[in-house]
Amino acid sequence: MISNLQVDADRIAEDIDALAAITEPDRPWTRRAFSPMFLKGREWLTNRFAAAGLTTRVDVSGNLIGLRSGTGAGRGTIMLGSHSDTVPDGGRFDGIAGISAALEVARALKDQNIELAHDLEIVDFLAEEVSIFCVSCIGSRGLIGQRPDEWLTREANGMTLYEGITEAGGHPDVASIRTDIKAFLELHIEQGPVLETGDFDIGVVTAIAGITRIEIIVEGRADHAGTTPMATRIDALTAAARLVLDIEHLGREFAQGAAHFAATVGEFTMEPNAANVVPSRVRLLIDARAENRADMERFIELIGESVNWVAAETDATISPPKLISDNPPTPCDVDVQSCLDAACDSVGAKYRRMASGAGHDTAWMARITKAGMIFIPCRGGRSHAPEEFAETEDIALGAAVLLQAVLRLDQTL
Amino acid sequence: MISNLQVDADRIAEDIDALAAITEPDRPWTRRAFSPMFLKGREWLTNRFAAAGLTTRVDVSGNLIGLRSGTGAGRGTIMLGSHSDTVPDGGRFDGIAGISAALEVARALKDQNIELAHDLEIVDFLAEEVSIFCVSCIGSRGLIGQRPDEWLTREANGMTLYEGITEAGGHPDVASIRTDIKAFLELHIEQGPVLETGDFDIGVVTAIAGITRIEIIVEGRADHAGTTPMATRIDALTAAARLVLDIEHLGREFAQGAAHFAATVGEFTMEPNAANVVPSRVRLLIDARAENRADMERFIELIGESVNWVAAETDATISPPKLISDNPPTPCDVDVQSCLDAACDSVGAKYRRMASGAGHDTAWMARITKAGMIFIPCRGGRSHAPEEFAETEDIALGAAVLLQAVLRLDQTL
Repeated sequence: MISNLQVDADRIAEDIDALAAITEPDRPWTRRAFSPMFLKGREWLTNRFAAAGLTTRVDVSGNLIGLRSGTGAGRGTIMLGSHSDTVPDGGRFDGIAGISAALEVARALKDQNIELAHDLEIVDFLAEEVSIFCVSCIGSRGLIGQRPDEWLTREANGMTLYEGITEAGGHPDVASIRTDIKAFLELHIEQGPVLETGDFDIGVVTAIAGITRIEIIVEGRADHAGTTPMATRIDALTAAARLVLDIEHLGREFAQGAAHFAATVGEFTMEPNAANVVPSRVRLLIDARAENRADMERFIELIGESVNWVAAETDATISPPKLISDNPPTPCDVDVQSCLDAACDSVGAKYRRMASGAGHDTAWMARITKAGMIFIPCRGGRSHAPEEFAETEDIALGAAVLLQAVLRLDQTL
Repeated sequence: MISNLQVDADRIAEDIDALAAITEPDRPWTRRAFSPMFLKGREWLTNRFAAAGLTTRVDVSGNLIGLRSGTGAGRGTIMLGSHSDTVPDGGRFDGIAGISAALEVARALKDQNIELAHDLEIVDFLAEEVSIFCVSCIGSRGLIGQRPDEWLTREANGMTLYEGITEAGGHPDVASIRTDIKAFLELHIEQGPVLETGDFDIGVVTAIAGITRIEIIVEGRADHAGTTPMATRIDALTAAARLVLDIEHLGREFAQGAAHFAATVGEFTMEPNAANVVPSRVRLLIDARAENRADMERFIELIGESVNWVAAETDATISPPKLISDNPPTPCDVDVQSCLDAACDSVGAKYRRMASGAGHDTAWMARITKAGMIFIPCRGGRSHAPEEFAETEDIALGAAVLLQAVLRLDQTL
């Protein structure tokens, strides 16, 4: 435990506990964006922001923002934040740890009567997780003017996204891009095991991996499982199994490089899925993540070769890999990375550089400003599950790193 | 085309067409047991049986039976038949071809004024296909006193099986075993490609393969697909894919032996089946069919070894193979097989001996009498599908074989 951090771990614990209590009671911890529970969490956060001396507002995109004005008029804004919405049956720390740490920076500045030249804003982005409208990062995309207008008419749970943003306090008709933000920082739990395994306090994020989703359809022939000889059947499942193993093999090979890479067949559905019928159709959805775009492009190429090879070997008809979505990697700002390294050193935190395999609001903020992220460890790397856990002192150490980074950025920007 | 068969192909075509017309109009060809459409088919068949000079009745188990009395009192019964129910979206020939051929035997005997010493019964077994009550061969099991009493209280579509049998004209409270049946013969479409591929007219069935259903549960760990390194994840899908390929490999090896063998992973379901989560659980259901029990026992043993190997290699937790059901193979009567061979020769039919990979009412009848089956070709081996097709002349040739077999059995039994 590192002491004299200028941040208060107890206040962070209070934040976490209070938000954890605002959950659907029968499935902790669930506070889905656009739900009454989410708005209740927002109400609590608004009061908590105000108690920290922040001037609160909801922006046009539905993001809750708390402002601590700086002394240097026109110097622009340093923004810190994350998100308070959760996945269903989610955890208490994903997003929330980042809001609490950001808020603690504001509280620490207030306690110590430190005035910044820049305005400081603490943000709770609307709907970072994949929402009921099947899209994510709605608030951060809105803040940078990149929320597609056609999303607004999407319907779920008896409301449109337009109505959902309005209910959160936003004004979805207004499109704007913030131009005053000079830097954005986000603290987040790692959601993986790397820091814990290596006994690191902090991960300074180098890039947010690109995410590509690839669909492959394997078509065999539905024949009677008892009467169709093994030699003449075309079994979509056994063909698909070859693909699954090829994809795993390629994923492991790419992951041995210096840059982050992961490939997962996350969706796999089979038809007709009847005990006595030879499988006729399998749909695979590959989730591939790459820190380097070149890795992803080579991976897609090799998956195509695998498809051709399996089709030739099995007589199955296999569609060429289809890119359902394809987002390139987002490098974090190099100056911000150096600043975060120095902030870690200044508080004695053991850190490493690492890529983020998961997507974050930071990836969108990086389009308009110098953006960076730090990770803190989470137990067993578990996330998006009730057992997700981060130690309060780890969050507090992260908050101390953020505070030091903000003080440095305020001088250097 | 072989002429002078003593059977009338036109009457067979009329049977097939008339029953095909009794279908749920929006999903041909569907005539599910216990449905109003099934009872309508039964009504038509009852009249058709009577027109052939048969005395019709429904037995206690709900089977429609047409009797042509023999001259030799106490000589017992030769029974021929199959089933008129279909799977959903099924075909016009599975079961129906066998009823029509059996009925044509009775009509040919009547036309030619041939009197048998034995009683001849034509049977339409109730609910051969897996029914709405999730069980099959309800009528044939009933006829041999092997229908479990606990089935009667099963409910589906707002009725119990008890009520369903009653509505079909049966008396489910009565349990009995027929002891007068001296032989049973069934004609059926092959439901596989062997006869068509080899240009055979008839398959003389040596045995009905045993069917064993084996469940395997593979448990991995649900981790974030983006953040969990490839090297530390436990992916239930990639472990299950190894099993699928092992099962296919073993199935192909056993199938190269002289006896029929097939193994199919027909059901395969994955959890959580979410794009960005490492698969945590897969359930496989294997359908294995063996003409030789020893093959099945060795197969089960080797699947167990595969499970151990895959678990060790992948760190997945894999349940030992669990036998969900396990029915041994049923050999057909050797005298009946010889009689069917001779019947084929007498009408000039090109035949081969072969096992049945599918289950049939004959497997149950074999428990109480000398039983045998013949297969006729079906186009592309397709069955349980609307495109199922058999040529009328192939059914007629099969009926001629049945007629010759009946004449021989009547003398030798």
